[in-house]
Amino acid sequence: MKIDGVSYRSVWLDSDGWSVNIFDQTKLPWQVEVLRLTTWEQAAHAIRSMQVRGAPLIGAVAAYGVALAMRAEPGRLDEVLETLNETRPTAINLRWALDRQKAALHNLPVEARAAAAYAEAAAIADDDAETCRRIGENGLPLLREIAEKKGRVNVLTHCNAGWLATVDWGTALAPIYMAHDTGLDVKVWVDETRPRNQGAALTAFELGAHGVKHTVIADNAGGHYMQHGEVDIVIVGTDRVTRTGDVANKIGTYLKALAAQDNGVPFWVALPHSTLDMRVRDGIAEIPIEERSGAEVTDMTGRTADGRIETVRVVSAGSQAANPAFDVTPARLVTGLITERGRSAATEQGLLELYPEKA
Amino acid sequence: MKIDGVSYRSVWLDSDGWSVNIFDQTKLPWQVEVLRLTTWEQAAHAIRSMQVRGAPLIGAVAAYGVALAMRAEPGRLDEVLETLNETRPTAINLRWALDRQKAALHNLPVEARAAAAYAEAAAIADDDAETCRRIGENGLPLLREIAEKKGRVNVLTHCNAGWLATVDWGTALAPIYMAHDTGLDVKVWVDETRPRNQGAALTAFELGAHGVKHTVIADNAGGHYMQHGEVDIVIVGTDRVTRTGDVANKIGTYLKALAAQDNGVPFWVALPHSTLDMRVRDGIAEIPIEERSGAEVTDMTGRTADGRIETVRVVSAGSQAANPAFDVTPARLVTGLITERGRSAATEQGLLELYPEKA
Repeated sequence: MKIDGVSYRSVWLDSDGWSVNIFDQTKLPWQVEVLRLTTWEQAAHAIRSMQVRGAPLIGAVAAYGVALAMRAEPGRLDEVLETLNETRPTAINLRWALDRQKAALHNLPVEARAAAAYAEAAAIADDDAETCRRIGENGLPLLREIAEKKGRVNVLTHCNAGWLATVDWGTALAPIYMAHDTGLDVKVWVDETRPRNQGAALTAFELGAHGVKHTVIADNAGGHYMQHGEVDIVIVGTDRVTRTGDVANKIGTYLKALAAQDNGVPFWVALPHSTLDMRVRDGIAEIPIEERSGAEVTDMTGRTADGRIETVRVVSAGSQAANPAFDVTPARLVTGLITERGRSAATEQGLLELYPEKA
Repeated sequence: MKIDGVSYRSVWLDSDGWSVNIFDQTKLPWQVEVLRLTTWEQAAHAIRSMQVRGAPLIGAVAAYGVALAMRAEPGRLDEVLETLNETRPTAINLRWALDRQKAALHNLPVEARAAAAYAEAAAIADDDAETCRRIGENGLPLLREIAEKKGRVNVLTHCNAGWLATVDWGTALAPIYMAHDTGLDVKVWVDETRPRNQGAALTAFELGAHGVKHTVIADNAGGHYMQHGEVDIVIVGTDRVTRTGDVANKIGTYLKALAAQDNGVPFWVALPHSTLDMRVRDGIAEIPIEERSGAEVTDMTGRTADGRIETVRVVSAGSQAANPAFDVTPARLVTGLITERGRSAATEQGLLELYPEKA
């Protein structure tokens, strides 16, 4: 997508044809800084330090990390794969991307590995961009239908499921970018998404940089806007969808799904096939919810009026905070799923119609 | 209630018998600073600059402001009443307290006014403390019942409806303080209450200072804890309750009420009679919602690790924010109302049983 009129992916080959460019996402939204990675160790550091985040993007950067390694030291494949795999042990796309590289490379002579690794990394990145583009195409009709009736469409989203978390387009934001690019009058309510503020920082940045109209709101405000007809549709991403259509996503998603149902607002979830977890049926009972540091609630980082980045405590001294990172929205509250293969009901039957091979 | 073991009200006469002490609430939770008001202009300034906030407390401080004025310049009653009334034009308790002073004083000779004004101010403060104490007594059985079954009771509250907003006890927090003081094992989930963070700053401070167990959470987290049985009851305050039991309160209250209903958690609203607005039936359609500055969403103030108070922007530069201050929870989501006269259903019939004179 675009930043100030220039098209970007979140990871791309430099014009030198071999080094790998990313944005340092730890500096966003305050500073748009391109980092040029020239060694696989730099790629590992970028993942570990969250200069890149978002499962699909992590996978693509790891794959390019293997390519950088094979260019310099093609004999160290196993060691490189192992080290990269340990940068973020819980990210499922990371292992998947590294397994793809391993399968592509381990039977090749060392002198052929670099070219093959770059080709495989490019394929992984292209596949992700294409998956997200299709999610956009499959979500677009939902927005177009509303826009044709009302002259405009107001979407609410929670957290960041945009192109900065993938290679391009994003998941929840893909239909929104496509609607904007095809000339629909689309406006986005961006939940700030406490405690880590991914909405206020990343989603607002992405949408603004691409030129999409948007307004940031406190997470508390969405229900009020739904009561007053100011939200036509909710689209969110997801970290895991169960066999029965339960949706794990950023903490607070469930509250928006409740408000959507109470006000007759459609609530859609955008996902690639890799997010499906057909082994799990009951999301609330079975999905473990990561408990993160209370400091994410008590302390906030931002920019002072004179440009310094400062961290301030916003909770009364001595009070503790709890910080569950995700919640589970039961399938009964989900209008449907938007995937790269089409849309389906948030049910086992709906999912198996799109993905019969997962039965 | 207590701060570090010492009992306080939020406004009280100094030991000199005539000057008026308050806490500078603009400095909370970072600094507990008692301000001694010696002139009615200082009282007016305290209200205007939000050194005191919360409708009942504003009324009491205004009443003491009249007393300070009558001590110095008893001939200027009308002018003093007018100026104090303009400090916060929308606060209904302010006018009510000043009208009480006017009725008590305007027929008195000037030399009798000071003593009468102090007596009336003390009565206003005592009345409010007593109203809140009764709210506490009427809410306490709800907590005791749960604690007797489970051995402990977990309460969730939103915003600040505590003693710092009233003269003592608070509304939503009154039953909690009473439960704590009578030895029940009570723990409070404190919604941080974005964007103004009244929960993280004031409710957490109050509860901590009194010794009540509590944990601050992002506003997004309450639904998750209800899904997992970690919330036994929700109690919130309110800015206005309609004839039919609709409840206007801090933005985000509606989302918690939805989650409470979805999980079978009782959702109670604590209020004094003065919060009832029997002229309004449909809260969502009829109650105008104040739209406050987007800067409250984009900018946050807190304390740095080295003790400086800083304001930082947390929203991407160039992105706008919207900031509705309240929302309306429909009566169908409200388990009941806790008032100084007892508990009732959130219905016209329930309200008229408690307040037949309001028919």
